[in-house]
Amino acid sequence: MVKLQGFQKLTSVDEALKAWLTAWSTREPQQVLLPLTADVSGRVLAEDIIAQADLPCFDRSAMDGYAVRYNDSICASPSNVVKLTVVETDEIDAGQAKQVWTGNPIPNGADAVVMIENTEREGNTVTIRNALTPYLNVIRHGEDVKKGQLVAKKGTRLNPYNTGLAAALGYSALKVYQKPLIALLATGNEIVAIGAQADRHQIFDSNKLMLTAMCQELGAEVVDFGIVKDNTDDIAEKIRQALKTADALITTGGTSVGGLDLVPDAVNKAGKPGVIAHGIALRPAMPTGVAVLNDKPVMILSGNPVASIIGFEVFGRPAICKLLGLNEPERRPILKATLTRKISGVLGRKTYVRVLVKFGMNELTVEPVSAKGPGSISTMTQSNGYIIIPENCEGLREGKTVLVQMFNNIEA
Amino acid sequence: MVKLQGFQKLTSVDEALKAWLTAWSTREPQQVLLPLTADVSGRVLAEDIIAQADLPCFDRSAMDGYAVRYNDSICASPSNVVKLTVVETDEIDAGQAKQVWTGNPIPNGADAVVMIENTEREGNTVTIRNALTPYLNVIRHGEDVKKGQLVAKKGTRLNPYNTGLAAALGYSALKVYQKPLIALLATGNEIVAIGAQADRHQIFDSNKLMLTAMCQELGAEVVDFGIVKDNTDDIAEKIRQALKTADALITTGGTSVGGLDLVPDAVNKAGKPGVIAHGIALRPAMPTGVAVLNDKPVMILSGNPVASIIGFEVFGRPAICKLLGLNEPERRPILKATLTRKISGVLGRKTYVRVLVKFGMNELTVEPVSAKGPGSISTMTQSNGYIIIPENCEGLREGKTVLVQMFNNIEA
Repeated sequence: MVKLQGFQKLTSVDEALKAWLTAWSTREPQQVLLPLTADVSGRVLAEDIIAQADLPCFDRSAMDGYAVRYNDSICASPSNVVKLTVVETDEIDAGQAKQVWTGNPIPNGADAVVMIENTEREGNTVTIRNALTPYLNVIRHGEDVKKGQLVAKKGTRLNPYNTGLAAALGYSALKVYQKPLIALLATGNEIVAIGAQADRHQIFDSNKLMLTAMCQELGAEVVDFGIVKDNTDDIAEKIRQALKTADALITTGGTSVGGLDLVPDAVNKAGKPGVIAHGIALRPAMPTGVAVLNDKPVMILSGNPVASIIGFEVFGRPAICKLLGLNEPERRPILKATLTRKISGVLGRKTYVRVLVKFGMNELTVEPVSAKGPGSISTMTQSNGYIIIPENCEGLREGKTVLVQMFNNIEA
Repeated sequence: MVKLQGFQKLTSVDEALKAWLTAWSTREPQQVLLPLTADVSGRVLAEDIIAQADLPCFDRSAMDGYAVRYNDSICASPSNVVKLTVVETDEIDAGQAKQVWTGNPIPNGADAVVMIENTEREGNTVTIRNALTPYLNVIRHGEDVKKGQLVAKKGTRLNPYNTGLAAALGYSALKVYQKPLIALLATGNEIVAIGAQADRHQIFDSNKLMLTAMCQELGAEVVDFGIVKDNTDDIAEKIRQALKTADALITTGGTSVGGLDLVPDAVNKAGKPGVIAHGIALRPAMPTGVAVLNDKPVMILSGNPVASIIGFEVFGRPAICKLLGLNEPERRPILKATLTRKISGVLGRKTYVRVLVKFGMNELTVEPVSAKGPGSISTMTQSNGYIIIPENCEGLREGKTVLVQMFNNIEA
């Protein structure tokens, strides 16, 4: 599907991405107020989470023991024990102590806790044998979070921990952004729906399935606009329909069919401003295109499975992150590993090499996955990360330490 | 909540984990056949995915051009051009060529494709000027996957890529394991539901929210058994109820309340064999317990937020991975980074240090997040990974390269 002669000029990844991401609206996504349950974890915050009070909001005991005035203890020693009267009140005076369990509030007037194992109790008298220091074994109010502190920023993704912290701070609902709706459209006379009867020269619609799963992983919703034949007018009509409801459109296939750029042409027929770049200095995924219609982003991905996946990684991820309302595009987890085989780049093109990272003897090792064509989905299932070779680099030598973007776990 | 005197003996993490994970059933989870949509991504395979045919199942053109017999081209050169007759049939003879577009099947009899830009066409005659090699520009059948090849193993998690590959191979449904149902129970007189009216000495039920989100992230389903007061009989009754329907139970709180081990006692009251280990050589999360009731796993987690999170990481993750039907427990993404400050361990205890990994000048750097108590949820929201210090290690020096288990992204 890579067809260099089809493109007079390739646009660099950075140039295309920058031009495209700034060519459609930066208006804030719709907000929605959701009750604070575990289901908000993964959503994007549409408000700052700010502590309305100290957390904890009272001094608590860190131990089972007795809350006392530390001043009462300063002369205590094994040879000069101090005896205090145990009270049940919410406030203690000099010479008094109150029994507390871990987590209990410290009574007013108390400023230290003596551990139960360092005391002796007889009736309502407790004996201590050691001097304490101020606030010993006391968790101070505000130790976790101080009133007014920003604990999670608008435009960041909620996770189990900041969701839990919001709950601890007394939030019972959170403002998050509405999930963006991404329309997906497959094109190609040879494509048949998954589960349909197919003859041996037809191809199952696996790209749309993969793109749907990738959109959903990022937290977007997907609406499926099906499969359309290789006809510019039909494709343009589907594109217009899709963008009536969806916030963005991703197409797969038809980027260079029989010498024709069906989908880019259809996008240009469907509205303005149309295609911003088509033919990217990217390997694989050169026939990728990016467009804007009615202030909405359109991604024109190759029909080649791996090229569509890489096109989505490079353009789809940052675009969806923007639609989600995230302040920054989310990156894949990265790690450093040592190359066990040299790999080649292509001067002038940013190259995504699928690699397998393994645990070596003393280090993480990384090897390229056999360089089959861009149509080989199995190269994705046999790898767990990418190495990105920049445009000005001919390749990376064996033994070099490289950064890997991980999309799957390392096997034990 | 850490109360060393409460435990006569601490059990090592490895010992407790091994004893516990083998003390309940290894029977396979229930299977369910799901239609092959993007929603199966993330589920665990209950069958091997095996290619029933080559992928692709026919030889395809990798280029726009003409399918020919390479033998016809071997004498071709710019000074000795070869002319072939263009036909439309599904089979070509010597001296014939068929026009093909990228992805088209190669006609029978053809074994190479000449790129269109290296040809000249006049009427039904095409001229070629260069010798080809066998299968030049042809994607061979089985290049991606060979018939009979295992492409995804039973007991592994589906992702966008292996789901797509299954679709490409003609699968229209996949057998996956039923999601395990995890019952969650919070205990504590001081705990109130999120959103409820609370006085200033009460604590919102944030632990159960975090544990729910962590279970759901792993792909389990959660059933909420609410909050129960500090009463052994009431807790035991709730535990019995929960395990009537759920596959596992996680409790938070009541691991050492007022000198009593309410939840461990309640678990032992609720059935057999009961608690396997309580008091783990783990920091934080020493008061963690693991138990088995009716052949189902029970995790007894601390009421301290961070201790409950670490207890879940250490015991909950591998247990839920087993319940999901995964062959191996899934690990967090790991990376290597350079310590910018020394950190201390505690001899005899496996220590989980919350850390923040950042991009340094030429490397990834990692620093411990301020060592507040185990109650500080904010230490989780300010960190993005853990370092695990083994039991026999007093600490790690500044400048050392360490492995970090990442639970959140590195900020740009």
